[in-house]
Amino acid sequence: MNRLDVLTLAVPDVDVARRFYLDGLGLEPLLDLPGEIVFLQLNHGLTVALWSADRLAQDVGVDPASVVPGQGFTLARNTASEGEVDALTARAEAAGAQVLRPPRRAAFGGYHSYVQDPSGVRWEIAHNPGLVVGADGTVHLQEIA
Amino acid sequence: MNRLDVLTLAVPDVDVARRFYLDGLGLEPLLDLPGEIVFLQLNHGLTVALWSADRLAQDVGVDPASVVPGQGFTLARNTASEGEVDALTARAEAAGAQVLRPPRRAAFGGYHSYVQDPSGVRWEIAHNPGLVVGADGTVHLQEIA
Repeated sequence: MNRLDVLTLAVPDVDVARRFYLDGLGLEPLLDLPGEIVFLQLNHGLTVALWSADRLAQDVGVDPASVVPGQGFTLARNTASEGEVDALTARAEAAGAQVLRPPRRAAFGGYHSYVQDPSGVRWEIAHNPGLVVGADGTVHLQEIA
Repeated sequence: MNRLDVLTLAVPDVDVARRFYLDGLGLEPLLDLPGEIVFLQLNHGLTVALWSADRLAQDVGVDPASVVPGQGFTLARNTASEGEVDALTARAEAAGAQVLRPPRRAAFGGYHSYVQDPSGVRWEIAHNPGLVVGADGTVHLQEIA
């Protein structure tokens, strides 16, 4: 598991998730099967799928009670500036996300907010001067503050 | 949230997670703070962090009971062949993962397995002829079968 190609997010209702990402945020899907599953490209070579929690549990062969939307992880969208954190947070809220942490100085030394989408998925919107992605996609990460 | 830059996975014990990914699978970390947090690069411009579930809950400002490791998502490592699914599944198991679904024909028409790492994180290892990543990182996705 040396490369992550697809991240599948369990959601309670695929159409609620579609409305947030496609209508609310204006994202273009890779493949969109309303009521079934939605695929988005969210980085170079990276597919994110929004799938019913029950169908995902069935596919994996585990108890649906162990596939709870939004748990166990957070996603992050990094920004080029603190102002962009503020703007993207406002945009997410306008699209229907709940703000968990308004933009503020982060423990890691940067500036960030946390929002939760209508499916329970939690996004951090972060300005982190210590994380830089080179033109070839190499991540350069150092501690700050 | 039109780009995913960092995926943070809540784990019960960062050192258990380190041992699996760094020692068991031989991955090189971007930044490794034993007992604290481990960062890995798992795709072009994509950082994955392994962090304590309690610390993540605290950072987000949510009840720790709502940050349960491994729940709510699956990760996928796509392969170039069915044989590679078999090989990577065996490698994951040898490193300490539990096989949830041995390699088999997938409902989507490809061939896949599911394994669970020692932290409870679930990986699908999949050969999907319908998902192709171009040289520029563009994902081309079509239904198969």
